[in-house]
Formats: sequence, C-alpha cells, structure tokens
Amino acid sequence: MREALAQAAKSRGLTAPNPAVGAVLVQGDQVVAAGRHERCGGPHAEVACLDDARQKGVDPAACAMYVTLEPCNHHGKTPPCTRALLEAGIKRLYVGCPDPNPDVAGNGAAFLRERGVAVAVGVLERECRDVIADFWIWKTTNRPFVQLKLAATLDGRIACRTGHSQWITGQAARRRVHELRARCDAVLVGGETFRADNPGLDPRLSPAPDWAKNPLAVVLTSRLPEPGADVTLLRQRPEQTIFLTDSVAAASDIAAGLRETGVRVMAVGEPGRLSLQAALTALRGEAGCHTVLCEGGGRLGLSLLAAGLADEFLLFYAPKILGDELAVPLFSGRRAETMEQALRLRLAATERLGEDLLVTFRPGD
Amino acid sequence: MREALAQAAKSRGLTAPNPAVGAVLVQGDQVVAAGRHERCGGPHAEVACLDDARQKGVDPAACAMYVTLEPCNHHGKTPPCTRALLEAGIKRLYVGCPDPNPDVAGNGAAFLRERGVAVAVGVLERECRDVIADFWIWKTTNRPFVQLKLAATLDGRIACRTGHSQWITGQAARRRVHELRARCDAVLVGGETFRADNPGLDPRLSPAPDWAKNPLAVVLTSRLPEPGADVTLLRQRPEQTIFLTDSVAAASDIAAGLRETGVRVMAVGEPGRLSLQAALTALRGEAGCHTVLCEGGGRLGLSLLAAGLADEFLLFYAPKILGDELAVPLFSGRRAETMEQALRLRLAATERLGEDLLVTFRPGD
Repeated sequence: MREALAQAAKSRGLTAPNPAVGAVLVQGDQVVAAGRHERCGGPHAEVACLDDARQKGVDPAACAMYVTLEPCNHHGKTPPCTRALLEAGIKRLYVGCPDPNPDVAGNGAAFLRERGVAVAVGVLERECRDVIADFWIWKTTNRPFVQLKLAATLDGRIACRTGHSQWITGQAARRRVHELRARCDAVLVGGETFRADNPGLDPRLSPAPDWAKNPLAVVLTSRLPEPGADVTLLRQRPEQTIFLTDSVAAASDIAAGLRETGVRVMAVGEPGRLSLQAALTALRGEAGCHTVLCEGGGRLGLSLLAAGLADEFLLFYAPKILGDELAVPLFSGRRAETMEQALRLRLAATERLGEDLLVTFRPGD
Repeated sequence: MREALAQAAKSRGLTAPNPAVGAVLVQGDQVVAAGRHERCGGPHAEVACLDDARQKGVDPAACAMYVTLEPCNHHGKTPPCTRALLEAGIKRLYVGCPDPNPDVAGNGAAFLRERGVAVAVGVLERECRDVIADFWIWKTTNRPFVQLKLAATLDGRIACRTGHSQWITGQAARRRVHELRARCDAVLVGGETFRADNPGLDPRLSPAPDWAKNPLAVVLTSRLPEPGADVTLLRQRPEQTIFLTDSVAAASDIAAGLRETGVRVMAVGEPGRLSLQAALTALRGEAGCHTVLCEGGGRLGLSLLAAGLADEFLLFYAPKILGDELAVPLFSGRRAETMEQALRLRLAATERLGEDLLVTFRPGD
C-alpha cells in the first residue's frame, strides 16, 4: 500500500475535482505494475495500473491489487473501475479507505465481494485518507483545500531580529516548496509578507516538469500598493495577481488603477475585518482555485490554523538555532496561560529533505 | 544492519567504558539470530549473536553476519571476536564502522580478510558511528558523553508565559525521558530549572527494567539552597545529589551544611564564571560519570551546544502551538543578525512517540 500511496502522491494537486488515487499490482512480494489517476478525465488509477500490467506482459489475474481509494462503481467520465477489475480477473483487492462520496460509498467493495472478489478495506486507512483530504474539502465545503507552508529554525524562528531569513532551509527543501507551488492553483501571502519580502510566488523549477501549473499570486491585505509601485508581482505578472482586501479599499481609486494593469481586486470583508472564510470562498468561486498554498507570514498562518481553515501544515525545520529571543517567532498573537490552551494538531508525516526535516501536521481529530 | 543497530541501541548507556555494539546473523532475507554487548565484562555482540544461533539451532556458517562495529582482534577482558567468527565458519561479514580505537583500527577486518572472509566495511556507517559516539568521547576526552534533552511545542516554546509546562508531550515521550534517565549516570540541570521545577531527576519506570540505573542528580548553580530547604533532592536523595558551584560558594557555611546532609558540593569555577568544561571533567573524574543527561533549562542547554559540549541533542516536539510571543522560548541569550550566524547542527534521526516526535541532532560536521 505504501507503493500505491507513493503513486497517489505524484498526482496530488493535479486531479481536481477528482481525488488523487494510486494503485499497484503485487505478485508474491513484488510490485509488478503501478498506476495513478493523473488528471481529471484521464483513466482512474485501477485502469492505469491494469494498462501498465498489460504493457509489461504481467497477468493481473495472478496478482493482488492495492488501491488507495475504494474503486468507483458508477459511470462518470469513465466506465466503472469495478467492471475493469472483474474483467481483468482480480481476485484479491486491498483498499486503503472507503469512498467518502455518499453516492458510491461502500458500493464498489460490496459489488466486488458479491462477485467473488476478496476485498479488504482499511489498509493504511489514515494515510490513504490524508492523501485525499483535498477531495473531501472540495466535496463538503465551498472553499479550496488550504496548505500552510512555513520554514523555521529548530527553535521556532522564521527570521532573524533584522528580518533576514534567506535561507533558513537548504536546497532540497526549497526545491520542494517550488514543487508545492507548481501543484497548487494559488499562492497566498498576508500583507506583511508581501511588503517585507516582495515575493514572486511563482514555481521556479528547472527544468519545469510537464505537470507544473502556474499558480495565481494572491495577497490578503487592507493596504493596497500603488498601481505604479516597483513590486515584483505588479511588474512581472499583474494578470495572475489578486488582491483580497476590504470593501472600501476595493472601491478606491487605487483599486481602479490596479485593475487597469490587469490585477484583480476583490472585497472580502469590511475595513478592519477581513474575512478568511470570504477570501477562500472567493478564490474557489471566482478564481476557480481548488488548492491554495499559504506561505505566510506567521500571523496569517496562525489565523488560518486557529479558524480550522488550514487543512495541511507543512513545516520545514532546519537544524539551526538562532537562540535569539528577538528573532521573529513562527507564530504570535495568541495568549496561553496553561498548556491546555495550546492549539493541538496531529503529526501526520515526516520526511528528510537534505539536511532539513519536513514535518506535516493536520487538524487534530 | 538496521536490526544490528536496534540491538546496539538496547545497550546504550549500559556498557561503559565499552561501546554499545549489536550483531545479527542473516540467512536468505531473514534475521535468524541476534546479540549485543550487554555490559562491560560480558560477551561481545558477535559472540552473543553466535550463542543465540547455537541456542536456536542455526548454523552460523550458512549465514552472513552484520555487526555495527569492526570486530576486535585482541585479547581484552574476552578473547578476540575475530577468532570466534573464524571458528563459527562465518564467510561473509558486513561491518558498520571501523574501530575508532587506534590500537586495533583496521586489524579485525584485515585479519579476517587474510583468512578468506569477505568483509565489507561501512554499511550504514554514519548511523553505526552515531550509536557509539559516547565511546568516542570517552576515548578522546576526559569528560562524560553529554545528552541534552528538551521538550517544546512545534513553535519552539518550552513553557507558557506563566511558566506552566506540564505537560508539553504525551505519555510515550515522557516514558522515553525516564528511560534516558535510567541509562545515564547523572541528570544535570541549571539553577533556574532547579528552583523553578523542584525536580526529582530520577527515572520513574514501572516496572523498572533490570538494566535501569539510578543516576546522580546534579545542579549547576552559583546559588546553593539552604541545607534545610524543602527541596525534593535534599529531602529524598541527598546522597545522590551534587551541586556544582563556584569556589566561594563551595567554601561557604551553606556548602558545609549541605555536605553534612550527604550532598556533595564541588567548585567548578570562580564567582560569576562557572566552567562547563570543569563541571563535566569533575563529573567524569570525581563522580565516575560516563553519560550525563542535561534536562535544561534552555540557557544551560544553549551554553552546552555553543561550547560544543552537547554530543547529542534530543528534542521532543509536541504537535501543539502556543503562538504566544511571551511564552518561554527553547533557547535565548544569543544574538544573530543574519541566518549565517545560526548555530548549525546535524539532523541525525527522527522517531514517532505517540502523538509526538523525537528529533535527534548531533554536532554539525
């Protein structure tokens, strides 16, 4: 199932509004074929895996299949996968998590069992659920899936007392950030990060993989920049830039001037009260964003986490210590008198990236 | 080799002044026998592993052996392991790291190769070196091996603004801390932690494993407590308590009073200038400590790290956020203007412990 999960992970961000699913065929102890759902409209993971087997001359009937999500049992853009599995002669099927879609939940497994296939559901279920957490958000809310990404020293600092922060992490971690950007529909930052870092927010991968997307750049701020300001986003990619601001700023002459350059300006709250929920709903409804990557700062990140609007928190830890109480902390603005008042998350995964560590947290259950 | 490393890890802290070594025999893909050096004077890992094979009716001559450290080739407290391997008919040997002891380095492998054994040295070498980092310190310095242990929230806080810190981590992590205490010869804290937490510093494992040690409690402070103070260490275990203080305090009436209760008081520097190096040298030379576990606070921990005197830094991360800039930071007292001024460590290992994460850092190379 780990191999099937690795297949699914390759598709993350690229299949919306479908889930990222992976499948493998196992003969004896060996993975002999693999497949994944690569994009909406393309073959499902099970079918891609059977195709791979055919190309490799592997007989699927002699194998067990592992698939991260319960096979579909209905006609959508493609015929039902249950049919394809039966035709291929699969006799043993291991499923990661049941289909959370109420239209089909349970049906695929039950349908196959009735036809003599031995089906086990719930293999590495939590991990298989985590890999389609985005799909679940799309199904049950009207906002995008939100990833929060921050980089910190091991003592929890995201910049020196001077604001200097380049670089906290090494090359492998920074490359991963660009891959995350290339898998999302928008990169979001708060006004402070926008003004302090003047970021480009674009994926810089060379060579760019063929699946790479070109995400929108989104700034959530009540202080719009002047239309002529010497700012990377306005200079390099105004037509891909969105400012989410309050209703007064959105109706101002500055907003009008920005719109003339191709920038979009949307109102997502009243002055002094920007709404994260409205911001995210606008990104999904008006800009078609299914996945948004928030890259800071700590204040916006903590707001998202505290509001339950950060679905995945990717923390890049560098094995470095600043040890300076005046360095910029990862998060601030909360007040806690006892440990019980801490915001609790769930540790979902860890991964070494060169000298650094990527720790993935998800909302606590 | 991972299995051999797991064997070695079981012996950590228990073999001084010998290294913790593990060995396994592998037949086909299966580990069929295992052994480790359990205590000074006991059989070496290779011999323990061959004994295990004998008891299990496994023929060592049909197996390859994996051992974390190059076999000894000299008569010490036990006969040379190279001899035992030849007699057992081992034909393939995989060695983690070469013996760092200049008396024997290279000899064991060379000796076996000359006698027809295929020897590969350097399998998971870094991990195998890390597991005997303590042995290396004992060989090359006159101080103990120093482990630093701290627990923090994911945003790098070790207590709330009120000082409240019980508990940051969950049960599994706290149990691990007690195991660490039971493997060391002394638990060290700074004066601030001593006064703030009134700690017992003893391993509380129930049931206590048979290998558990009862470490000394050591406080590094220039402010000695009054002999009659209502303090856990003075009340419960004065004869296992050591105060490391300055020369004036060590000659004071208070020190004399403390000594009458069974407490040891040693001078390790002049007033205002306690010496970490002197403190550690005294613990090795006068108290026979081979392994010291420092449990804080952050100030003492950072001093040890900055002086290159922390050989292993065990950071227990809880998936919690305080987000309060007035909460107590992991480390303080340094000043860094740019990221280049950060103290760099090496990320050596990660391990899930219940809901928490244990990250092990070592001095940067």
